[in-house]
Amino acid sequence: MAGIADKMASNQKQIAISEFFEKNKHFLGFDTLQRSIITAVKEGVDNALDACEEARILPDIRVKINKIDSKKDIIELITEDNGPGIPQKSIEKVFGQLLFGSRFHAIRQSRGQQGIGITGVVMYSQLTTGKPTHILSKVASDATAVSVNIGLDTRKNKAIKSDQDRIIWENDDHTFKEHGVRVTSRMKAKYQRGRQSVFQYLRMTSIVNPHADIIFTDPDGEVHHWPRVTERLPGKVDAIKPHPHGIELGQLQRMCKESKDSRMTVFLRSNFSGVSMRAAKELCEASELAVTAKPKSLKPDQIRALLESFQGERMINNKAIKLLSPPTNCLSPIEEMLIKKGLSKTIDSKFIATMTRAPNVSHGNPFQVEVGLIFGEGMAADKPVEILRFANRVPLMYQQGGCLLTKAVESVDWRQYGLDQPGGRGVPKGPAAVLVHLASTNVQFTSEAKEALSDNEIVFEETRKAMLEMGRGLRKHLEKKKKMAKTREKFELINDILPAIAAKSASILNRPVPALAGSITKIMSAVICEEETVWNTETKLTDVEIILFNYTSRARSYSLLVNWPEKEGAEITANERGGRKEAMGIWAWKIETLDPGEQARVTYSLSGLEKGDWNETEVFFRGNQDVIGATKLDEKMLEEIRRQEEILGDSEIPAGEEEMNGFEPGVVEGQPGQTTLFGGEQ
Amino acid sequence: MAGIADKMASNQKQIAISEFFEKNKHFLGFDTLQRSIITAVKEGVDNALDACEEARILPDIRVKINKIDSKKDIIELITEDNGPGIPQKSIEKVFGQLLFGSRFHAIRQSRGQQGIGITGVVMYSQLTTGKPTHILSKVASDATAVSVNIGLDTRKNKAIKSDQDRIIWENDDHTFKEHGVRVTSRMKAKYQRGRQSVFQYLRMTSIVNPHADIIFTDPDGEVHHWPRVTERLPGKVDAIKPHPHGIELGQLQRMCKESKDSRMTVFLRSNFSGVSMRAAKELCEASELAVTAKPKSLKPDQIRALLESFQGERMINNKAIKLLSPPTNCLSPIEEMLIKKGLSKTIDSKFIATMTRAPNVSHGNPFQVEVGLIFGEGMAADKPVEILRFANRVPLMYQQGGCLLTKAVESVDWRQYGLDQPGGRGVPKGPAAVLVHLASTNVQFTSEAKEALSDNEIVFEETRKAMLEMGRGLRKHLEKKKKMAKTREKFELINDILPAIAAKSASILNRPVPALAGSITKIMSAVICEEETVWNTETKLTDVEIILFNYTSRARSYSLLVNWPEKEGAEITANERGGRKEAMGIWAWKIETLDPGEQARVTYSLSGLEKGDWNETEVFFRGNQDVIGATKLDEKMLEEIRRQEEILGDSEIPAGEEEMNGFEPGVVEGQPGQTTLFGGEQ
Repeated sequence: MAGIADKMASNQKQIAISEFFEKNKHFLGFDTLQRSIITAVKEGVDNALDACEEARILPDIRVKINKIDSKKDIIELITEDNGPGIPQKSIEKVFGQLLFGSRFHAIRQSRGQQGIGITGVVMYSQLTTGKPTHILSKVASDATAVSVNIGLDTRKNKAIKSDQDRIIWENDDHTFKEHGVRVTSRMKAKYQRGRQSVFQYLRMTSIVNPHADIIFTDPDGEVHHWPRVTERLPGKVDAIKPHPHGIELGQLQRMCKESKDSRMTVFLRSNFSGVSMRAAKELCEASELAVTAKPKSLKPDQIRALLESFQGERMINNKAIKLLSPPTNCLSPIEEMLIKKGLSKTIDSKFIATMTRAPNVSHGNPFQVEVGLIFGEGMAADKPVEILRFANRVPLMYQQGGCLLTKAVESVDWRQYGLDQPGGRGVPKGPAAVLVHLASTNVQFTSEAKEALSDNEIVFEETRKAMLEMGRGLRKHLEKKKKMAKTREKFELINDILPAIAAKSASILNRPVPALAGSITKIMSAVICEEETVWNTETKLTDVEIILFNYTSRARSYSLLVNWPEKEGAEITANERGGRKEAMGIWAWKIETLDPGEQARVTYSLSGLEKGDWNETEVFFRGNQDVIGATKLDEKMLEEIRRQEEILGDSEIPAGEEEMNGFEPGVVEGQPGQTTLFGGEQ
Repeated sequence: MAGIADKMASNQKQIAISEFFEKNKHFLGFDTLQRSIITAVKEGVDNALDACEEARILPDIRVKINKIDSKKDIIELITEDNGPGIPQKSIEKVFGQLLFGSRFHAIRQSRGQQGIGITGVVMYSQLTTGKPTHILSKVASDATAVSVNIGLDTRKNKAIKSDQDRIIWENDDHTFKEHGVRVTSRMKAKYQRGRQSVFQYLRMTSIVNPHADIIFTDPDGEVHHWPRVTERLPGKVDAIKPHPHGIELGQLQRMCKESKDSRMTVFLRSNFSGVSMRAAKELCEASELAVTAKPKSLKPDQIRALLESFQGERMINNKAIKLLSPPTNCLSPIEEMLIKKGLSKTIDSKFIATMTRAPNVSHGNPFQVEVGLIFGEGMAADKPVEILRFANRVPLMYQQGGCLLTKAVESVDWRQYGLDQPGGRGVPKGPAAVLVHLASTNVQFTSEAKEALSDNEIVFEETRKAMLEMGRGLRKHLEKKKKMAKTREKFELINDILPAIAAKSASILNRPVPALAGSITKIMSAVICEEETVWNTETKLTDVEIILFNYTSRARSYSLLVNWPEKEGAEITANERGGRKEAMGIWAWKIETLDPGEQARVTYSLSGLEKGDWNETEVFFRGNQDVIGATKLDEKMLEEIRRQEEILGDSEIPAGEEEMNGFEPGVVEGQPGQTTLFGGEQ
């Protein structure tokens, strides 16, 4: 017995992080040969897209896979971009050292996060084929490119550099490459086709990164090209400071300890987002701290008090201290129009609804959820709906079952919205596909492989709400279609049968055929709106026509309003009735007097769009009598839209409130779903 | 443009492993407050069990959770064991330094693997409450215990030690603690009840660790005790060397480079398992290497050649070099009896089947799959079956959907085996629960939280096969029950009606009642076996009675055989008929002549068992006429059992074969399911 504790202790050793990940390469996504190749492509492409976005360059991504030894499953992977390039001195750290990166300490949305991914590829290649990875990198300011082989000393987590040289980098067309990186690795991997494939990964990537031009040459030499569909780069995302709501005590202790600030107010304002001068002073007051106190000298109890003020537990006059929301310019959502485009590109189907929730905050990290749903006849009705998951514009291809996004989809009772779902839980069945995207400054994955999101109540609720709103949009759409179909049927019946009866009766009675307009109107007793949105192949415009029929016995007066993609850059032309802008994306016309039996017509065209961008216009009305085929305008919704325009993320929220109920109050929480405003049909 | 590459590069920094895991604490299982507490308990208990097993101590585990601040969700967790203790100088590294441990470099089955777990708890506690973790540790050779507070400098991955002292450690009953560790942490966490709870985690742990005595005091002060049910520690697991089949090229390169061996044969024999002297020489020959070559001086091509010989691509006389299987004494399966016991303890139900596959090898790592199934009336028939997952005797509570074990369950068409399963895929529905355990020297989890197994074809196939065999056992059981019921019904009918008809006819005809035995026999025309296994509460023995009825018109002769838990230490007593041992766990009797209409009876008792250990005896026979209620003996199966006894994991397998078809040939692959031999019924 004696000595066993010492003996056991003597076997304990420090493990290098590179040894750790070499043994646990499955944490990084290198478990099966099929998955390893997707992981390797993903790490290369993610880095390329991140670098291009940061340098504000429209990305040209080239991926090529060569068979080297089919029997032994050895392939060569080449990834090339036109990003800013990596300076010579940084190459060995970027590719040959784990946990080295620029995005770990910055709070902003990016694909890469940890400084693990591409070094993992170098490590995996070396482990399975013994070969280093070849890097070719050129920065614009150098005349030549660096060519170098990088391996990994896993015992020390250091790069092994060899064959370094400077060379002229020529493109295939013999022009000189201005800047960019090419990475060539040999590894054990198996190329396959199907739902979990490099092809599918790149296709999905192109959907959510329409600014990228991607060319993929597969092992059979077949070339796949996803051209750039927009010249607009995603919005520049700025790194932000942590928000007080997301700080843990241990973190605050460290921040204080490491602070060189001379006084609390400076410390609070320069290290946190959302803290105004007034708020900084109030936080000090609530925490019983002098504004001149030195952060470095705070006692544990004082730090705890400060955290309590952050969290709204310490108040002034019974009120939590108001903090600004974290800025959301650190986020880059895909945006509705692109989701729609992407979805309709992937799956050719009938109905598309999308829903972008306003940004929210979880543990101080801003995030935003976007969802899309496609529903139609082309798809199998008896299979589970396909779930397309994305995080920070990166497709997630594995671990679907363990992902928070899937769980959110499963938590909705889809039977209410027209999809089959035995037991009211689980992935619904039906001719549909669901897209869900999380944009966040801190995407919490379940592992380094970044394939599934770990549990988080606030993100879950936000995703679930997005699904519910989208579901309501789908139901509304289906109900409206049903109602319109019924009305039309009735109308056609009356219009066919009444005149026939009248003619027959008149002929039998030998009387003249009576005027029926009044009677028809009386029987219909409805105002009907018909809308048509079509792509005009000649003019390259989207033509919209709205007709309002008054089938009632009284004269009517309405305001007609429509939604249109103003934010996406469309313009209204050939709008003969004029009208006026009511709010961002909402146009209105006055229909002064519409006599019984009469109709009014509104026509206009939308320029600046492409085919498929805008397939259905939603019509709203102001007025007393209901209009079949249009929606009574919800004035609150309109106000909300106007308010949002003014706000732009500058609203004040009381401290602690987010922590207490899991949501920002007011502005964020109260925002309406936009599905009904922007639902579309192809 | 110029300079952007430099600017971007200048933002890049090295990230400390502790910073990495602090930011990604969800990788370690600290995502939600509910899960964090389970993770913390798990890490403490896993360490305690590992330490006790290694030191060959029967573990006494005490877990206590105290509420500190319910409003802020602050709890205190105390975990105490009677393990060997941790020497003073090791404490700070074990608790305050990530990636420090003894089990990372050793190939053998253990719960802990990485040297992350318990330090993660210290880190999480510090982050959420700012408090260090208190350690009390005593080793047997010291008179006093060390008391010390441990925190973590996350920037440096170093422990922060404070308040170190040596004290007398008294137990509650004022005796002195001989050896052990007590860990006390304060953290933000939420205690909850239900399927994913500390209570459930400990309950499941006690099922698969019956040698542990576990007492849990919950936050309400309620005490739960799972007493030790066996004094037998799990088999001692030895660390093994890597097997040549599991080596990657990069790894072999490093092993050669770091080798100090003077010649290849020494290198091969001392660094790998499964390499005999003959094999070492043949490997050199096939690789065109001198046996005297110095491993350190091998050229890349020579190392590659050696790997090819390992993998059977280089041969001698067209034959791959034969290597021994890796030893399997590095594994510690739960074993059938304990699985049965555990399952019947958890869920009170009718039928239990278990299946332990023989050890197999994946990428050089020995592993073994065990499964159990419980089926019966007590459970809900319209819900998905509960899946109880375990890896190296640790219950897995999260990430069920993303786990290889779940996928293996889902891949089986359970409709064939009497369970409902819409579409023939997915988790089946029905009144059942499935237990599945993987014992392995290298369990590949999807993340550091160790909650789900990542994809691996070989392990998947092995698990699937285990399920299929178990399923067949279930079906066979159900079919046998049905057949017996029918036969019994027929028999009762004949026995009731024939005599009644005979009596009636005789009375009408005024004749004597005829002897009917012959007729009954003729109509039944069957040999029937009835078996009863019951626990005798008086003698504390398990009594078995087998009756063989000959309802045919000819005399019969049989050998009757039964299975019995010989391996588990039972003994046969009161066996009047004598008989003989046929193989391990199989006893046989000769029934010389059984005349028409006669019956033979075999009775015996089993000692050394507890109530519930053995509830059904399977009866086999040798002979020509079929026996209803018994199974015709499959002689091959018997041979297999005998062969296994002799082998004990010492068989030779050809090099490379495992890599080529994913399975070891012969011994392992050809092994029959044991479900039919050891299926049981309560």
